[in-house]
Amino acid sequence: MLNEVSSFVLPDKPVEECGVFGIYTPGLEVAKVTYYGLYALQHRGQESAGIAVADGRQVQLHKGMGLVPEVFTGNSLDQLTGHAAIGHVRYSTTGSSQPLNAQPLVFRYAKGMMGLAHNGNLTNITELRAQLCATGSVFQSSTDSEVLVNLIARYNANSLEEALMKCMIDVKGAYSLVIISEDCVYAARDPHGFRPLCLGQLGEGYVVASESCALTTVGATFVRDVAPGEILRLDRKGVTSTQGFRAQNPAHCIFEYIYFARPDSTMDSFNVNRVRREMGRQLAREYPVEADIVIPVPDSGTAAARGYAEESGIPFEEGLMKNRYIGRTFIQPTQQLREIAVRLKLNPVREVLEGKRVVMVDDSIVRGTTSQKIVAMLRAAGAKEVHLCVSSPPVMRSCYYGIDTSDEKELIAAKQPLEEICKAINADGLHYLSLEGLLEIFSSKGGHFCTACFDGRYPVEIPKPREAGKFSLE
Amino acid sequence: MLNEVSSFVLPDKPVEECGVFGIYTPGLEVAKVTYYGLYALQHRGQESAGIAVADGRQVQLHKGMGLVPEVFTGNSLDQLTGHAAIGHVRYSTTGSSQPLNAQPLVFRYAKGMMGLAHNGNLTNITELRAQLCATGSVFQSSTDSEVLVNLIARYNANSLEEALMKCMIDVKGAYSLVIISEDCVYAARDPHGFRPLCLGQLGEGYVVASESCALTTVGATFVRDVAPGEILRLDRKGVTSTQGFRAQNPAHCIFEYIYFARPDSTMDSFNVNRVRREMGRQLAREYPVEADIVIPVPDSGTAAARGYAEESGIPFEEGLMKNRYIGRTFIQPTQQLREIAVRLKLNPVREVLEGKRVVMVDDSIVRGTTSQKIVAMLRAAGAKEVHLCVSSPPVMRSCYYGIDTSDEKELIAAKQPLEEICKAINADGLHYLSLEGLLEIFSSKGGHFCTACFDGRYPVEIPKPREAGKFSLE
Amino acid sequence: MLNEVSSFVLPDKPVEECGVFGIYTPGLEVAKVTYYGLYALQHRGQESAGIAVADGRQVQLHKGMGLVPEVFTGNSLDQLTGHAAIGHVRYSTTGSSQPLNAQPLVFRYAKGMMGLAHNGNLTNITELRAQLCATGSVFQSSTDSEVLVNLIARYNANSLEEALMKCMIDVKGAYSLVIISEDCVYAARDPHGFRPLCLGQLGEGYVVASESCALTTVGATFVRDVAPGEILRLDRKGVTSTQGFRAQNPAHCIFEYIYFARPDSTMDSFNVNRVRREMGRQLAREYPVEADIVIPVPDSGTAAARGYAEESGIPFEEGLMKNRYIGRTFIQPTQQLREIAVRLKLNPVREVLEGKRVVMVDDSIVRGTTSQKIVAMLRAAGAKEVHLCVSSPPVMRSCYYGIDTSDEKELIAAKQPLEEICKAINADGLHYLSLEGLLEIFSSKGGHFCTACFDGRYPVEIPKPREAGKFSLE
Amino acid sequence: MLNEVSSFVLPDKPVEECGVFGIYTPGLEVAKVTYYGLYALQHRGQESAGIAVADGRQVQLHKGMGLVPEVFTGNSLDQLTGHAAIGHVRYSTTGSSQPLNAQPLVFRYAKGMMGLAHNGNLTNITELRAQLCATGSVFQSSTDSEVLVNLIARYNANSLEEALMKCMIDVKGAYSLVIISEDCVYAARDPHGFRPLCLGQLGEGYVVASESCALTTVGATFVRDVAPGEILRLDRKGVTSTQGFRAQNPAHCIFEYIYFARPDSTMDSFNVNRVRREMGRQLAREYPVEADIVIPVPDSGTAAARGYAEESGIPFEEGLMKNRYIGRTFIQPTQQLREIAVRLKLNPVREVLEGKRVVMVDDSIVRGTTSQKIVAMLRAAGAKEVHLCVSSPPVMRSCYYGIDTSDEKELIAAKQPLEEICKAINADGLHYLSLEGLLEIFSSKGGHFCTACFDGRYPVEIPKPREAGKFSLE
Repeated sequence: MLNEVSSFVLPDKPVEECGVFGIYTPGLEVAKVTYYGLYALQHRGQESAGIAVADGRQVQLHKGMGLVPEVFTGNSLDQLTGHAAIGHVRYSTTGSSQPLNAQPLVFRYAKGMMGLAHNGNLTNITELRAQLCATGSVFQSSTDSEVLVNLIARYNANSLEEALMKCMIDVKGAYSLVIISEDCVYAARDPHGFRPLCLGQLGEGYVVASESCALTTVGATFVRDVAPGEILRLDRKGVTSTQGFRAQNPAHCIFEYIYFARPDSTMDSFNVNRVRREMGRQLAREYPVEADIVIPVPDSGTAAARGYAEESGIPFEEGLMKNRYIGRTFIQPTQQLREIAVRLKLNPVREVLEGKRVVMVDDSIVRGTTSQKIVAMLRAAGAKEVHLCVSSPPVMRSCYYGIDTSDEKELIAAKQPLEEICKAINADGLHYLSLEGLLEIFSSKGGHFCTACFDGRYPVEIPKPREAGKFSLE
Repeated sequence: MLNEVSSFVLPDKPVEECGVFGIYTPGLEVAKVTYYGLYALQHRGQESAGIAVADGRQVQLHKGMGLVPEVFTGNSLDQLTGHAAIGHVRYSTTGSSQPLNAQPLVFRYAKGMMGLAHNGNLTNITELRAQLCATGSVFQSSTDSEVLVNLIARYNANSLEEALMKCMIDVKGAYSLVIISEDCVYAARDPHGFRPLCLGQLGEGYVVASESCALTTVGATFVRDVAPGEILRLDRKGVTSTQGFRAQNPAHCIFEYIYFARPDSTMDSFNVNRVRREMGRQLAREYPVEADIVIPVPDSGTAAARGYAEESGIPFEEGLMKNRYIGRTFIQPTQQLREIAVRLKLNPVREVLEGKRVVMVDDSIVRGTTSQKIVAMLRAAGAKEVHLCVSSPPVMRSCYYGIDTSDEKELIAAKQPLEEICKAINADGLHYLSLEGLLEIFSSKGGHFCTACFDGRYPVEIPKPREAGKFSLE
Repeated sequence: MLNEVSSFVLPDKPVEECGVFGIYTPGLEVAKVTYYGLYALQHRGQESAGIAVADGRQVQLHKGMGLVPEVFTGNSLDQLTGHAAIGHVRYSTTGSSQPLNAQPLVFRYAKGMMGLAHNGNLTNITELRAQLCATGSVFQSSTDSEVLVNLIARYNANSLEEALMKCMIDVKGAYSLVIISEDCVYAARDPHGFRPLCLGQLGEGYVVASESCALTTVGATFVRDVAPGEILRLDRKGVTSTQGFRAQNPAHCIFEYIYFARPDSTMDSFNVNRVRREMGRQLAREYPVEADIVIPVPDSGTAAARGYAEESGIPFEEGLMKNRYIGRTFIQPTQQLREIAVRLKLNPVREVLEGKRVVMVDDSIVRGTTSQKIVAMLRAAGAKEVHLCVSSPPVMRSCYYGIDTSDEKELIAAKQPLEEICKAINADGLHYLSLEGLLEIFSSKGGHFCTACFDGRYPVEIPKPREAGKFSLE
Repeated sequence: MLNEVSSFVLPDKPVEECGVFGIYTPGLEVAKVTYYGLYALQHRGQESAGIAVADGRQVQLHKGMGLVPEVFTGNSLDQLTGHAAIGHVRYSTTGSSQPLNAQPLVFRYAKGMMGLAHNGNLTNITELRAQLCATGSVFQSSTDSEVLVNLIARYNANSLEEALMKCMIDVKGAYSLVIISEDCVYAARDPHGFRPLCLGQLGEGYVVASESCALTTVGATFVRDVAPGEILRLDRKGVTSTQGFRAQNPAHCIFEYIYFARPDSTMDSFNVNRVRREMGRQLAREYPVEADIVIPVPDSGTAAARGYAEESGIPFEEGLMKNRYIGRTFIQPTQQLREIAVRLKLNPVREVLEGKRVVMVDDSIVRGTTSQKIVAMLRAAGAKEVHLCVSSPPVMRSCYYGIDTSDEKELIAAKQPLEEICKAINADGLHYLSLEGLLEIFSSKGGHFCTACFDGRYPVEIPKPREAGKFSLE
C-alpha cells in the first residue's frame, strides 16, 4: 500500500509541520471546540491529530494518524470531558508514518500530569538530549516535544511559568507551545516569535491558536498575538502573562505570509490575503510584461495573480483548473501515464490559453520540477508565451525553524543562476519578487522577519551538519 | 457511525448523480486511464466508483463505495487487464449507502457478457419494470440501469446498436450510457441530449466521457459531442456512428453550466467557465448596485462574481474563505456549537468585510437555509449591506432527469415571492438572473436547453406522483 | 494482501459451502435470534453472512463478507426490524472473494419482494440458465440462487408453494432453501434430502436451520427433520407442510456425519457425536493394532479416536496440540520456515509420543499432503510406529451436491492403491473404515445415504465436464 | 462500537497478562520466527503484539493492537531485518485499549538503543516511580516496563548485566524479561521465578520464550528453564549466564499449570497436560461420586476430566459443545436473549446428558457466575444430578504477580463457605482439589510454588491498598 501511493498534495512546495490550539472555558464542550479549531488549522498538518482534555483532576488524551475528521468520532470526543483542552495537527517530513510522534504528548512527572503540543523546530536538540541522557533520561520518540517535556520535569520549578522561563534559556530555535495541566492551559512563544500564536476570547474563557482563522471559526474574538518570549496562563482567573526571555528583534517566519497561513488569518498585525495581493502588485511593478492574460497556479498563487492583474491592467483568467478531490493517496502513474497525473491535478484550459501571451503567478519555486511541467502543459494547450512570476525571492537555504524546504542541494535557486532556471523550466521570462520589495510591503508597521531561507541570515544558530539525526529513533 | 456524521459537502445545492467514461485503445493500460478519467469526473459523484474491463474474452469488474482513490488500489487496477474499459462515479440521493446500486452493472445474457454504466434518470421506469416483471424478470436493485439491462437482454437483437435503438423508443428520460461487451465499447445519449457526453481520440483509439475535462486530463484530443439519440461503437475499426431516435429539439440540462460541470469543461460548444463569467456580467447589467465590493460564495460563485465585478467596476474581493479539508464526514455539532460548523466551512474575513456594502454572488438557491446563515455571518463580520445576486433564475420545480433538487415543496422560490425570500434571508437586496438573460448568453450559437426546473416546461413526460418509488428496493 | 496470506483453516479437508436459518416468531427480535443461529452455524461457512428480515410490508437486507460477528454490529441488527427473518453463512470455493455472491439474495418480482438463501449445489444449472437467458433473463452472479430466483419469478404461480413444486421438477441437485416474503418464511429440501434441514419451535413461532445445534442454541425445541421434497410455510397460523416431488430413496450426505456437522447436532435421527464414536469403535474392530497410545488429529478426529481407544483398550492421549488462534489469515512461510507453519497449527507433544507405538485417528484424507507432514512430525517427536486410521472410506470421486472435495485428479485415493498411499505418507500402517462398516452404524434405523464420493453412485445426474463454468461470471 | 460488544473469551476465569519471546540467530529471518513464536504464545495475551529487531546498528519496532496475525503483515515483517529480535503479546486488564501500553518499548538512552518486553507485575512500582520522578523522570504510560527502562538508564552501568543485577535489588515482584540492544538479546527472570521462561537452541543461535510450546513450534530444541534471578545474554558467542539476586526458595506460579499454560508446554520440569490429568485423578481420589458420566467444561477442564474418568472408571463424555468461532467481539444480548449468549458459547448436548448423573470438571471458579449458568443448562438438558469438581483449591486472594483474578471481594470462595457456594450454583455436590493434593502431584521432583491466591502466603510484599493506581496514566 505505502509503495503504490504517493503524497500528491503539495509537490515541490515547502511543508509546514504543525498547528496548535488551546482553550480554557468552563461550561463549553472544550474537546469539540478544539476539534473544530484543529479542523480550521488542518492546512498546517495532515498526518496526525490529537486532543488532550483536563477536568481539574486528570488529563485525558485521544490521538491518531490521519486528518482531524478521521481521528475523531463523536464518541471519542464525548469521552473527553473537562473545561480545558489543547490540540495539535502534525505534518511529518518522514516518509513513514510514526504513530509515536503524534501529539499532544501526555505524561506524568513529579508535579502531576501534563500534556504538551508544539509547533516549530528546536536547533540544539542533540546537545540537550545528550545532556539529559547522561543523567538517565530515556527517549521513546524523535520529537522535540519529548526533550521539552524532560527539561520541564527536570527543572521541577515552583511554577510551570518558571520552568518554561528556564527552558527558554536552554532551548534554541522555534516553538509555539500549548501545555495543559490538570486544571489550566499555558501558551508560550519562542524569544524570536518564529511561528505564529495568537490569543482570543470565547465565552467566559480564552483560546489560543496558531492562526486567527481558528479563533474566528470557533466564534472567539481576536485579542492579540502572543509576544515573542511571552508565557500565557489561561485559568479560572482569566489570562495571566509572564514575559520570559525575549530576543532583541522578532524574527517572524515570512513564509507564513507567502504560502503557509490561511488567507483569512491575520498574524502579527498583517492580514495574509492582503499581503499576498500586495506581493502581486509589487511583482507587477518590478517586472512589467507585455502579455494578454495573468493566470495563477491555484490555489496558492491566486491572490498574488489578482494583485498582478490589478496593478498591470492585464486581465485575470483561470487558465489552470485544480481538481478539488486530489487527496493524500494517489496511484503512482507508470511511465506511459506520467503526464496524466500532472494534468489530473492541474488541467490547462485551452479555451483560455490558446494563442495568448501568459503571465503565470506562483508563490514560490523549490526544486523547479513542477514549474517545468506546468509551463510545458500551458504551451501544449496553445499559450504563445509564458512568463513565470514568483511572489517570493529565490529560496536558497534550508529552514531549521519548523519548515521542510527540502535539502539545500535540491533547491534550484541555490544551484543555478536565474537565466538557467528560466531555461530549465522553458519559460519566456522568469522573475522572483525582490527581498526588498517583499519587505517593503510590511514596512508601514515595521515588522521584523526571519528571511533566512532567502538570505542565509539565521537569527538562531543552526545544527552542525554531522549532528543531524544523531539521536533519531527513526 | 452513520448517525453521528452528516454530509457537509454541498448543503442546499442540487446534486448531480453520475459521471461516465469509456475507452477502447489497444496497447494502453485502459483500467488506469479510466481511473484517471473518473478522478477528473469525481465532482459528478462521490458515493461509489467502478470500472469494468474487457479483453476480448470476458468482462471483469471492480467497484465499491467511496471516492475513486479509495475504491481502487494499484493492485486492483493491475488485475483489470484488457483493451477496453468503462467506468462510473455515482452520487446517491438516498441517505443510506447502497452497495448494490454501485455501477457499472456487469451481467451475462444470451449473447455473452455485458457491462453498463448510466448517467441520468429515466421517467417511465415504473411502467417498464412492471412490464418486465409481468413476464418473469426480477430486480435486485433500484437502479435505472437494471431496467435497461433487462430491456437489452429481452430484445436479443442482431446487434447491440439495434437493441439500443429499440430501447430508445421504449425508454423516456435522460441517459448518457457507456456499455462494454467482451470486445468493444458503446456510448449512447438520449434523444434530447439531457446529460452531456463527448468523444475524444487517444493514441490508436477513442474515449468517451461525461465532460471534456476527463478527455483533456487523460491526454485525449476532443473530437466532438455525442449527438442526441446517437449511438457510437468504439472498436478496432475506430468509431462507428448510428443515429437512433432523436427528439425534434435538443434539451441540454442548463444546470450543468450553472453549477455541476467543471469550469474547464466545454460541452455542446460552450466553455463552462466562460458561460459562468457571462452570467455574472449579465447579472450586473440586470441588477446594478451601489456597493464597495463583490464577493463570491466559493467555489461555485467565483466565476460569476468575477464577471459581475468586471462589468460593474466594483472591486472583487474574497470575503468568505472555504476550508479545503471539509470532507464527507463531519461530526454533527450540538446546538451550542451549531454556528461553528458553518464557519468551519465558510469563514467570513472581517478585514475584507468590515464597513463595506457587499454584493455577494452565488450560483443558485434551493432551500435558502444556507444563504440565510451566510448573510448573518457577513453582517456579524461587519458588512454594512449585503446584496445577494444569484446567477440563475429561481428554482421552482423538481428535476426528473438526473439531478436531485430536493422536493418541490422545499424549494424556497416555489413557496414565497421574491420580497419574502429577501426578507427571510435578511438581505438588503436579492436578484436572480432572468431566464431571458440566461438564455441570451447561449443565443449566438443557438443552444437548446432544458429549463424545466425554472419554468416547468418538461421536455419529456414526468412520472405520476402516485407511482413514485413503487418498485423501489430501498 | 491477498497474495501474502493463505487460508489455513482446513488444509486438505473437504469444505462445506453453506448454512441456512429461518424464523417466524412475532414478538421476538428475529434479526438477533438469526444472528445467534448463524453464529452456531458458522462452521458451515466463513466467507460471507447475511440476514433478511420481513415486517409485513417489505424485506430488508444486510449482508457482507466475513464472519458473522464481523458482518453484523448491534446497530445493523437494530435496524432490521420485523417478525420474520432468514439468514445464510457461505463458504466460497473460489479463491477470490465475491461480494456479489453473498446471500440472501433479495429481489422484487411480479408478486412483490422475496429473499432466498440456499445450501447445496444444483447440477443442471447450465441448462436452466441457458433456457432463461434465451427468453431474456440476465444474471449478475454465478450463484445457483440467482437461477432459482428467476425460475420462481417465471412461474408466477398462485402461491410460492406451487412455484416451488414446479421448480423441484426442473431443478436437479442438492438444495436446502429458506425463503422470505413480505410476511412469511418458507423452507424446502430437495427430493433426495442431500443437505440437512430441521424444524424447531420457539415461543409463539417456528424456526428452521441446517443443523439442530442452531435450534438448541437459540432455545428452540427440536420438532423434526424436514422431509425430502417437503415445503414448509411458517406464518401466523403456525407451520403448513406441502409435499413436493420426492425421490424414491433419500440420499442424505454421509459426509455431514463424518466431518462437517457440529458434534452436538442430531440430523435425520442420528446424533453426530455418537456416530463418530461408533466409527472409531468399528475402525478398532476392523483394524486392531498392537500399539501403546491412540491419538486424534484434533478436532475432527477426536470422537473417533476416543471410540477406537474404548473398543481397543489402548489408552487415549493428546499427542498433537492444536493452536486455537489460527484464523483465516496467515503469513505464507518462506521455504526456510515452512515446517514451522505446520507445527504452529498442530504441535506434536514429545512427552506423550516419545518411544510410543501410535494409532493416529483422522476423519478423512483428501489429497494426503497434510497426513504426510503430520506423520513426519510424530516421528520427529519420537514416535516409534505410526498407524493411521481413517474414520471414513477412501474419497474417490468429486461431490456435486454442495461440498468441495477438490478435483478428482487430486484425490490421493483415486490415484494410488492403499499400499502406495501408506508408503507416500510414510506410515507403518493405514486403514480406512470400510463402506460396509460405515453403513452398519446407521443400519438400526435404516438411513439412506449418498455415498457417491466413495463409490461413485451419484443419485442425481452430474454435470457434463465440458459445461463446467460455462456461464460463470467469475 | 465498544459499548455494544463485550469480551466473551474467558468469562469468569483469571487472565494471564503477557508472553515474551527472544531470538539471536544470524542467518535466519528472525522477525518471522518471532512472529510464529508469538503466535504459539497467543493464549497468553490477545490485546496487543509487537516485535523489535536489531541488526547491529539499530533497533526497529513494529507493534499494534490486536492478535498477532492482525498486527503483522508479510510486508511489515519483511521490513524488520536483522539477526536478533524480541517479541511480546499482551492482555490488558483495563477495559479500554491503550495503544501506548503495547510492548516492546523501544527507547534511546545514554548507551544507545534498547527494547524491552515484560511478563509479570512489579509490586513496588509506585515507590520506584515516585523516586524517579523526584529526580526528573517522566512517564508516558502506566506499564511496569517504563519504570524498568528508566531504572536501567539511570544505572548507566558498565554492562546491561550489571544494570539488571542492580535493578533486581530494587524491583519487587514478578518479571520475565527479554531485552534487545543493537547487537544482542538478554533474558532475565525474577529472583523467585514467578513467571516461566525457558531457553532453546535453534540453528546457530538461541531462543528464549515464556513457554516451551513456542520453542518446539519454531523448531528449537529445548535446553533448560531460565533459573530464578538468572540473566542470559544471547550473542554471537552463544549463551552467557550471569546469576543475579536469587530468592531462597523459588515461587513458580502454580496457576500456570492449572489454567494458563498451553497443555503441550513443559515448564520447570513438569509437562502441563500430564499435571492436569493428575489433578483429575487426585480429584477422583479425594471426591468419589456415584455418577453415570464425567464431562469437562471445555477446553480447560478436558485433561482433568479425563483423569477423573480414568481414575474413577466412570465414562468420559462430551456433554458441552464449545463454539470454536466465538471471538473477541460479540453483540451484547438483550435481556430477552441473554440465555442464548451462554448457549452460543457452550451448548449442552441433550443426547449425552438426558437422565444422567453428571460429574462436571472445571479447572477453577472465580466469581461463580458462569458455573451457575452451566449447571442450569445441564439440568435443562435433562441431567439428573450435577456434581461440580474443580481441579484447583478455592481462589481466596488476589494475585499481584502478573495475573488478573478480579477483586478479592468478587471471589466467591472468599465470601462464602463451600456449602453456600454449592447452593448458589445449584449443584448436587461441589468439591475443590485440596491444596495438599495439588502439591502432592509435584512432590516427586520437589517443585516450589507460589500458592498465594489459595492461602495468602505472598512470597513478596504486596502493594499497600491506598497506593493502587496512584501513578496510573489511565
